[in-house]
Parts: sequence; structure tokens; C-alpha cells
Amino acid sequence: MRAVLFAADGAVTVESVADPAMVEPTDALVRVRRAAVCGTDLHVVAHPEHLPRGTVLGHEYAGEIVAVGAAVQGHRTGDVVVGADFTACGRCWWCRRGDHWECDRRQFFGTGSAFGPPLAGAQAELVRVPFADTVLRAVPPDVPFDAAVFLGDTLATGYAAVQRSGLRPGDSVAVLGGGPVGQLASLAAQACGAGVVVLVEPVAQRRALAAAEGALAATSEAARGVLDRVTDGRGADVVVDAVGGTRGLDAAFGLVRRRGTIVSVGVPAGPTWPLPVERAFAEELTLRFAIGDLMRDGDALLSLLRSGMLDPTVLVTDTVPLDDVPEAYRAMAERRTLKSLIAL
Amino acid sequence: MRAVLFAADGAVTVESVADPAMVEPTDALVRVRRAAVCGTDLHVVAHPEHLPRGTVLGHEYAGEIVAVGAAVQGHRTGDVVVGADFTACGRCWWCRRGDHWECDRRQFFGTGSAFGPPLAGAQAELVRVPFADTVLRAVPPDVPFDAAVFLGDTLATGYAAVQRSGLRPGDSVAVLGGGPVGQLASLAAQACGAGVVVLVEPVAQRRALAAAEGALAATSEAARGVLDRVTDGRGADVVVDAVGGTRGLDAAFGLVRRRGTIVSVGVPAGPTWPLPVERAFAEELTLRFAIGDLMRDGDALLSLLRSGMLDPTVLVTDTVPLDDVPEAYRAMAERRTLKSLIAL
Amino acid sequence: MRAVLFAADGAVTVESVADPAMVEPTDALVRVRRAAVCGTDLHVVAHPEHLPRGTVLGHEYAGEIVAVGAAVQGHRTGDVVVGADFTACGRCWWCRRGDHWECDRRQFFGTGSAFGPPLAGAQAELVRVPFADTVLRAVPPDVPFDAAVFLGDTLATGYAAVQRSGLRPGDSVAVLGGGPVGQLASLAAQACGAGVVVLVEPVAQRRALAAAEGALAATSEAARGVLDRVTDGRGADVVVDAVGGTRGLDAAFGLVRRRGTIVSVGVPAGPTWPLPVERAFAEELTLRFAIGDLMRDGDALLSLLRSGMLDPTVLVTDTVPLDDVPEAYRAMAERRTLKSLIAL
Amino acid sequence: MRAVLFAADGAVTVESVADPAMVEPTDALVRVRRAAVCGTDLHVVAHPEHLPRGTVLGHEYAGEIVAVGAAVQGHRTGDVVVGADFTACGRCWWCRRGDHWECDRRQFFGTGSAFGPPLAGAQAELVRVPFADTVLRAVPPDVPFDAAVFLGDTLATGYAAVQRSGLRPGDSVAVLGGGPVGQLASLAAQACGAGVVVLVEPVAQRRALAAAEGALAATSEAARGVLDRVTDGRGADVVVDAVGGTRGLDAAFGLVRRRGTIVSVGVPAGPTWPLPVERAFAEELTLRFAIGDLMRDGDALLSLLRSGMLDPTVLVTDTVPLDDVPEAYRAMAERRTLKSLIAL
Repeated sequence: MRAVLFAADGAVTVESVADPAMVEPTDALVRVRRAAVCGTDLHVVAHPEHLPRGTVLGHEYAGEIVAVGAAVQGHRTGDVVVGADFTACGRCWWCRRGDHWECDRRQFFGTGSAFGPPLAGAQAELVRVPFADTVLRAVPPDVPFDAAVFLGDTLATGYAAVQRSGLRPGDSVAVLGGGPVGQLASLAAQACGAGVVVLVEPVAQRRALAAAEGALAATSEAARGVLDRVTDGRGADVVVDAVGGTRGLDAAFGLVRRRGTIVSVGVPAGPTWPLPVERAFAEELTLRFAIGDLMRDGDALLSLLRSGMLDPTVLVTDTVPLDDVPEAYRAMAERRTLKSLIAL
Repeated sequence: MRAVLFAADGAVTVESVADPAMVEPTDALVRVRRAAVCGTDLHVVAHPEHLPRGTVLGHEYAGEIVAVGAAVQGHRTGDVVVGADFTACGRCWWCRRGDHWECDRRQFFGTGSAFGPPLAGAQAELVRVPFADTVLRAVPPDVPFDAAVFLGDTLATGYAAVQRSGLRPGDSVAVLGGGPVGQLASLAAQACGAGVVVLVEPVAQRRALAAAEGALAATSEAARGVLDRVTDGRGADVVVDAVGGTRGLDAAFGLVRRRGTIVSVGVPAGPTWPLPVERAFAEELTLRFAIGDLMRDGDALLSLLRSGMLDPTVLVTDTVPLDDVPEAYRAMAERRTLKSLIAL
Repeated sequence: MRAVLFAADGAVTVESVADPAMVEPTDALVRVRRAAVCGTDLHVVAHPEHLPRGTVLGHEYAGEIVAVGAAVQGHRTGDVVVGADFTACGRCWWCRRGDHWECDRRQFFGTGSAFGPPLAGAQAELVRVPFADTVLRAVPPDVPFDAAVFLGDTLATGYAAVQRSGLRPGDSVAVLGGGPVGQLASLAAQACGAGVVVLVEPVAQRRALAAAEGALAATSEAARGVLDRVTDGRGADVVVDAVGGTRGLDAAFGLVRRRGTIVSVGVPAGPTWPLPVERAFAEELTLRFAIGDLMRDGDALLSLLRSGMLDPTVLVTDTVPLDDVPEAYRAMAERRTLKSLIAL
Repeated sequence: MRAVLFAADGAVTVESVADPAMVEPTDALVRVRRAAVCGTDLHVVAHPEHLPRGTVLGHEYAGEIVAVGAAVQGHRTGDVVVGADFTACGRCWWCRRGDHWECDRRQFFGTGSAFGPPLAGAQAELVRVPFADTVLRAVPPDVPFDAAVFLGDTLATGYAAVQRSGLRPGDSVAVLGGGPVGQLASLAAQACGAGVVVLVEPVAQRRALAAAEGALAATSEAARGVLDRVTDGRGADVVVDAVGGTRGLDAAFGLVRRRGTIVSVGVPAGPTWPLPVERAFAEELTLRFAIGDLMRDGDALLSLLRSGMLDPTVLVTDTVPLDDVPEAYRAMAERRTLKSLIAL
């Protein structure tokens, strides 16, 4: 099959590789019809210390099942499905709580050993999906591939940030970062009861998208002023950090109100960060970290997609064939595009 | 002052009556700038067994404070406010829980002794508001009177129905009844995380409004079919009965899915109703009753109004001066109008 | 194997029958080490319209796995397990929500076709368990069989009643009925944050047990007075109806406070029941129905058992060998015993 | 009146001072019948940078109202009450949410300007209580002063830690610190649904108390081993840090499981603390800070006291007259006593 690879020379290329084979009776094989390029792809390629040469890349995918193992109960060949970006057994103590990310059987597609034992990625014509009953979710006929492909990571992450915040109706939400996850956190917050959403982003085009999609958009410099105006000076009930690093958390503490909640879905810059603990204590703040999980949130998200309450396709800047994926990586890394889909 | 009265002959009239006086140090006097006609007004006038002749009618109002008692801490003369439709002391065990409706000091404006000791209504130039600190809520400058006036009852009720359902993101909601409360339950559900909302209503014009405002609209006959299509045959996760009587509850049980929740905000038809208890047990159903409460939910609702996530003014069919209120009662009773505001 | 049967003449007998065979790859066979007699057993035998002659009875069991099908992932031969009293696929929309009772693949052990397609019961040396990954839960070494056997139904039901009530810390709880489920609802409420628990029961011995286990115990006649004393006259925040029939619901409405919650786990007396709807509306009551579910609640319950916060074995009045089960049925039906375990 | 003072020479003394006077119509005067010495008293005396000489100390108190201002609605002279350790207006946006600590009108009794504008303390024969309707809570006749006096701070804090953790039934809880707050966090956790509670404390006598009151007690060195044994190696679902400083948070991160929650009620050691952010992100941890609040939690706590589900008096090591309070401070600072009450 054709697949996007992290090549021997460190480049992203498209090559022919052997088709994946069924390994476990709980596996399924999926013929990918839509994949996507994600910020995490750019990150692991730029920091390849856990990424062996030759890895098939990609972890956002939707398609059709072409084979199921003998132990798969809930899916059949021909089913249209979307997959989570990581695997979980569906049986253990963690999975029973819905904490699939903590499952000891976790593998993350297409990222080498960054988040568990390696598993070939999904920017490919075929992908092997372990624990298919748990990892795959059926896509109803009224949800197009272009929307479904967001469920595995980008939308699941934006939604997880909102859900983990304990958002209550009418809450003010600040979202740091207008990349794909930040934009979908804004949409998820609006769909789930937020009052005002203020999206903070330096790039004007991304602010324009956020504003067109219902948020107030602001630069970092203007953000606190905008929030103060709409919250009578209190600051945001909820801050979603979709930037990460030191910058995201610092900014989050500058926007959150007393007794407010910060949820970070951004990758940290190092092992520790100087938490302003005196203020956090005096103001009874909450700091949480969240990771998207289609397996936990897929049914709710599919309902929101089907009813049109939430439409992630507004993010799509381009849809490319597999052969053009290397260029799509470059364009996204240079922020010329926001979100590239891959049509197969 | 001029006020709408339940006259000696049983008619609704507009007459000059004595201005209300301050009675308790916790009182405020409000100059009404916007009032509204509510289904409850029509109901008490049509069933006046608890309504003494001469009662000043009305319980939806927003305006400016013109006097405050010595014990009022949180409001001043000149403040723009909206009031709850009933009073509560703000101090007792019930009020501390947010269950103001159960407060022993409850009085309901303009409805005689239907819901507690009588209290003059708010379809008048002035209204006396007991326990002003608790009953009145300040209205920010960016919320117009036309929106604020809904907070005291109609919107608070629609919102209470949704909140009491335990709505989760993506849940399917059926709303029975396209009157003002049903329409606002639909909007509140959409603002608070619902997936699809199906509003069930016989009047085509009301269905059209619901559809224009984001719901699927259906006749009673078509409702189950529409729901089945969007819920894969399961039925609604949540049913809001905004019709009441035997008809509303019967219909609700016809639409709710197994383990689903019915919230009724409709007035019952009699002391008892034959609950299908075998089915309710076998399917683990939940049946709840809810009453709107600005005192509990005002801050959340004001946030949703300010951000535009929820706009109740789409319901307004006419705005009339005080002298035209008797005709507005007739038009609403005959379903020629949906919601009449009163400008003073 | 030896098993308890609903014999051809309508009696409960112990006979030798063929061992159960593995049917599906998701099955397990369990060698039963401890079973129990449940009120539901007595009920189906007394009302055998759905109970074919020859049915192996019983649905409470713990034991050791002696065979697993090829598709079973989470259990192995030799594992010590407790089983739910009904089956669920673990894969469908309902199961993913934790609503296993609504699964289309539900079968209830040992009750004929009362709650789904028939499935041989567990008062037997061996029991076949469909969907073993979902239906069985591993029992840690520090939980004895005598405690574990309660997890499948009686304790799961008492706990479900409490959980579904939305109990908040300090809430007052009235439990109607001092049978096994009522007693365990009392213990579960105390373990999960209740303030005072008032157990209402006519039999003095059962009241004595409840009182010894931390509840206030009262006859029906005395119950309201006791509650009024400890709730300043308000009534119970939560009422658990573990009696059922018309009597249970009537009594529940007599004890619940305004805006309180009734959860019924008792079997109804007929298809409908006259709900006091006017009062329910005026007081914003909540009425819910609940069914126990080890699959949903097993991890929490096992934690409470392991730490000793909840000990169901206080209910055990006798432990009998298989041959004495027919007499144990009689003794429980005549209320000479409260809960009989079966040791194999 | 006689009162405990922070004297001109930095010592704690008992002197005669002027009786407090009523200042605002929302004030009450309380004749103190029981007060207590709290770790916060020891802290502010040891770090007196915000503590003017001559300050009346103390913030835990219960007694009888001897005067109420004209605007006080909910209390009368002669009422038996317990007070919160800080004030709040009861009317503002924060108070309406139950976030009294964030009220702009906050004053903290007897601690100088450490937590807001100064307010005379309650280790005195009389104490002036601003916003009496909000700050004071009536104590039912069946709750003795010895229990009630814990409600204002120590118990409210232990309880707040547990509530803010989102504790679910059966959760494992580690409590760091066996001082009064840690001990009451252990009791509150057990009363509110915890499975196992492991209290970590170096002093053997305090471990013994914790063990006698239902927890597993461990030294810091043994804590992880004990937790691993009872959680199958996962670590604690919830960690309460009742130690504070760098040491408390470091230890908390050593005990919490993946996706677990840490709640700190301990005073930080400095403005920042190096949060292990990479781990916190990878394991989706939650870190919250909490402060006790009788105004929010008083009704729940009184219910738990009345029913005996929670008894804070097990902590009392000595009860002293006012004149012996300076020695009681010394004994508590040297850990010779755990909790000293003051009888007046």
C-alpha cells in the first residue's frame, strides 16, 4: 500500500510499503478514506527522538472496515468507522472508568514510541486497529468523512478540555491558541453551554475564523481587557490552554478569575513549571490536564455532529491526495494552512 | 398609578389605583419599564377561584428601583433590575439550597392566593417587591429590557426544565408544546449542550418559529417518527413537558427512551395521573417536576443573554402600552399572538 | 451437576441435570462456590407465568472460572469472580453509557422469560455466563465469597437506589422496607454520605438489625414522626422504596420533603399507579426507578467492601448446602430468615 | 471583656479590653461559649507581619447572640449559633455562587490584615459578627458547643478538601498530615463515600488517633507501600494535602494515581512551586486548592454532626478557660496537644 513515512533521511515521504496484517483476534483492518495532518504529527517529526525511521505516520482517520478478527463483536466488514488516535483494551479498571488513556495496553498510532509501544500510523491506505471493538466507533450515514475524521483527536481534544473544566451554563471561557484544537475548544464550549468565549491568538486569520464562528477574538495583549469588559472585571470562569509550554500556562493564570479553572491540553515545555502556588491557594484555583478520548466521548460528539450543533469542517483549509501530504506538513508547520485533510 | 386589574365583573381592565407603599425594610419599589403577559395570567383569569376581584395582575417585569427599604443591602435607587415572579426570604434552609420556591415566605405576584398569600402584580406602573435583595437581580447595561423581562418567569421556566433534566452534551431533547415556555426550553437546551431538539406542537406558525430557531418541529402525530430517525429508534434522552395536563405527560411517556428523563413544567389537570409504573420501573425512567427560579439561575441566564447565546426576544409578537393589555390577553388566549410585552 | 430447579410440579427441588456447555466464544463457565436466595427467586416461583418447568433457578453467585471462550480477553481459568444477575454485551450504545440493563442482549439468570430470553440459573454447581468479559468481575483475595455474592444483585440494587437519588452529604434518607435490599440501601446510604437514615419496617427483628447497623428504625406508623424530629419537620431528602407495589409508593410520598427525590427499586403492583401529580408539580418532586448493575458499579462496591466501609454479610441468617435450598426458600418466604447463602 | 491578645511584646496574653460595639445594622454580637485554638492562630503569631499588636485573636467560636442589628433577618437575640471564620456579604455575584471566600467584603477574624481588612477575633467573651445573616448559622439543640465550634474552620476545611476532590463512592484517599485538618479530612472522607483512607503522619500518637477513627495510618516512608497494597499499585484516587509548603505538594504527587486529584488546603511555602508539569499532563492530573466555608457547607455539616456520622470532638485533647489560652498555644505549637477548646 501507499503510506506517509518518516523516511530514513528524516523527511516526510510517500512510499509503497507492505500492507498491514491482522495480528490479534481483536484487530480490525480499516481502509482509510479520510485522514488528517495534526499538530502532533508536526511535533514528532520535528522532535524525532522517539520516532524510528520508516514509521508510517498519522493518527486521525476514518474509513471502512475490510477485515475483523474472530474476537471482534461490535463491528463487521464494510462498516464505516472512525478510530481513536490511541488504543485501549476496553476491559481493565481504567477502561471501565472511561480513562482509556491510562490503559496499560495503550499504543498511539504513527508516533513511534512517544506515547507507548510503536503502532503503524493511519496516513496510509490501510491501518491495523487493535482492540477494534473499543477503538473504533461506527459513523452514522449522515456524518460525512470530512467531519468524522476530526473525532479521533482534534475534536476529541477540544471537547475534553471543555468537559474537564466542569463548564456550567453561562460560564465565560478563554481559549489560548487559535490552532485546530483551540478553535474546536471554542466550538465545543459554545455547544456545551458557555456564555462568552474569548479566543486568544496572534495570527489575524485565525482570529477571524474564531470570530466568524461565534467567539470574541483577541491578541494576547488585548485579551485581559476584552475579558474584563464581558465579565465585569473578574476574568474567565474557565481557561483552556491550547498553546502549551511555559507561555500557555503563564497566560492562563493571567486570565483566570478567582476560584476559576484552567485546563491545559498543550504539551509542556519541560519537566517542571513554576506554579504560582500562593495565588493558587489564596484564590482556590483549579488546574487540570486533559487528553482527548473518542472512546469515552464519541457518542456525545457524534450526536453534536449529526445535529449540526458542532461543525469541525470549518477548520479545513485544504484536502489533498496522499502524494501531497509532505507539502501539507510543510504548509501547516509554516501556518500557511490551519488543517489539512487527506482524501484516499 | 395605572394598572391591569382583574375587575369586579371578571374582566381584565386597566384602571387607576393607589400607588403601592413600602411595607417592610427589605422592600423595594420598582418603576416598571417592561412587563409581559404570561400563560399563567391567562390561566388564573380563566380559573379565578383563588383570584380576588381587584387584584393587580402580572408577574413578569423589569424596570428601575425608585425606593429601597433600610435593610436592603444590594440594590440602590436608580438600579435597573428584573424581578423573580415570586418572593423568597433568601435566608432560610430552603433558600440556602437554592430552593426558593419552597421558602415559607413565598408570595407570587398578581395571582391572588393561587401560590401563597396575595401580592399585587407587576402589570402596573409601580410594583412593591418584598425581599428585594433576593428577588431582584441587577440587569447589565448591555441587556435590553425586552430580553430582561423574560428572566422572571418564561425563560427561567424553560431553563429550569432543561437544567433539571441533567442534560448531557449531545443528548436528544423532545419539547412538548410550542408556547413561550416550550420555545425557550428549546433555546435553552440548544444553548446548554443538546444535540437534536424536536419540538412538538400542533400550530404550524409555532412549529415554524421553532424550526427557524434551530429545532426540528413536528406535529404530535409525526413526533415519534422524527425522533426515531435521529435517535436510531431509541427515543428522546430528555423530554420536556411544557403542555401539562394529562395530555402532556401521556405524550412524554410516548417519546422518552429507556432510562430517559421527563421533566414537566406544565400545570397538571387534576390531583392524580395514572403513571405507567410497570414500564417506568422496567425502563428505569425518571420523572421530575420543575419551576423556574430567577433567584437561582439569574446569573447563568444573564451570561447567556449578554453573550447572545440565547435570545428570548424572538418570541415577541407584539409590544403594547398598558391600555391595550386586555386585548393582548385575548389575543394570546386565542393563540393569535405568542408573547406580548408591555412597554411603560 | 446438582442444581436447584423449578420442578415439573411447581415445587423447588434439587436434582441432577446436564452440565452447562460453552455456546459462544464470549462465554465462561463458573464453578459456583457461593450462591444466594433472593426475593426475586421467591417472586418468580410464586408467580411462575414466565417460568418454564425445569428452569435452573438463582442469579446471585460467586465462584471460580473453569472455562473461557476464545473471545474472552479479561478473565482466565482459575480466576475468582462474581457475576451480575443479568447479561449485557458490553459493546452497544447502552452499554457504553453504563446502562447495561437496557442492552438488547439482556438475559436474566434463572428467571425464565421474565426479563428477557431464558438463561439457566446459578443455584447450581456450574453456570454458563455469556459475555463473560462484561458480566463477570474479578474478586480480590481480601473479599470473601460471603461478601462477594451480594454484589450481583442485592447490594448492587441497594446501592443503585442510593446513587440514583443524587444523595448529597448530610442528606436525610428514608428507606421503606427492611428486607435485604432495604437493609443494604441503608448501609449504602450511610457509606455514601447520608446524614440520618430512617428505615421503615413492620418486623421488629428487621428493625433491630437496621438499628444495630446505624439507622433509626421505625414502624410505618411512627416513621413520619421520627423523620420530622430529625429534619425539623421537613421530611426526607431522599426516600428509597424497597417495598414496591402501591404500598411502597404511597408511603414514599408520605415521607418525602418538598423538592425531594423518591427512588423505587420495588416491583410495581400493576401497570399504572395514581401519581399525586398536583402535589408532585407544586413541590417539584422527583421520582426515579432503579435497577442494580454490578457491571456499572462493581469497582466502587468492591472498594467499599475491601475497606470495610460496607459489610453486607450482616444480613446473612443462614448458610445452607444445595440440598437444603428448598427449605431455605420456604423460610425466607415466611420471613423466618432474612438472607440465605448457599455454600457449594 | 476578657480576651486573648497579641500583646505589645509579641506574646499571647489575656487582658481586659473594651467590649465590641455594634457598627452596622447587619451586625450581631455573640457571647462566646466555646472557642478553639487553630493552627492558623499559631501561624499568624509566629509570622506576625500582618498582625498588629493588640489584635484580639481567634476565629473559631460558638455562642449565643446578645444583640442583632436592625437589618438582620434570620437571627434573634438568644439564638445559639456558630460562626464562619471570615465574613461575606451574602449578596454579591461571588456569594450567590457559594464562593464566599472571594467576596470583596471578606474580613477574617483575629488575624490582622493577613486575609483582608482587620476584624477583632473570637477568643474573647464577646465578638462582633458582620453580615450576621450570612456568617452565623443556627445550631440545633442536639449539637453540643464542643462539636459546633469545629464548624467555623477546622471541620469546614477538612470537608472542603474532600468535597472539592470530586470524591466518588469507593475512592481511595490519602491524607497528608495528621493535624486537626488532616484528621477531619479523614473523617469527612469516610462519611462521604471514601473506600480506604490512608493518613500519612510522622507523629505516632496522631497516627494512632487516625487508625482508631477508621483510617489506615502510615509514616511518609511507608505511605506508598500501604497505598499500593490497597489500590493494586495504582496510588490514591484523591490526595488531600493538609501539610502545605513544598513538602506537602511533593508528597502528594508521590501518592496520586494517574488521572487522580490532589486538593491542597495547606499554606504554601513561597510564591511558586515547581509543578511536575510533564507528568501532570501525561497523566491528566488535577490540582485544586480549597478553603473551608461554613456559609456554603454548614447545613450539610450540621446534618452529619446531628446524625453522628461525623464527630469532630475526638480531636479534643484539652478544654481550657480563657486565662490558660497562652499555654494552650504553646502546647499545640509543640505538638503536645492536638486541639484545644476554650470554655467560657
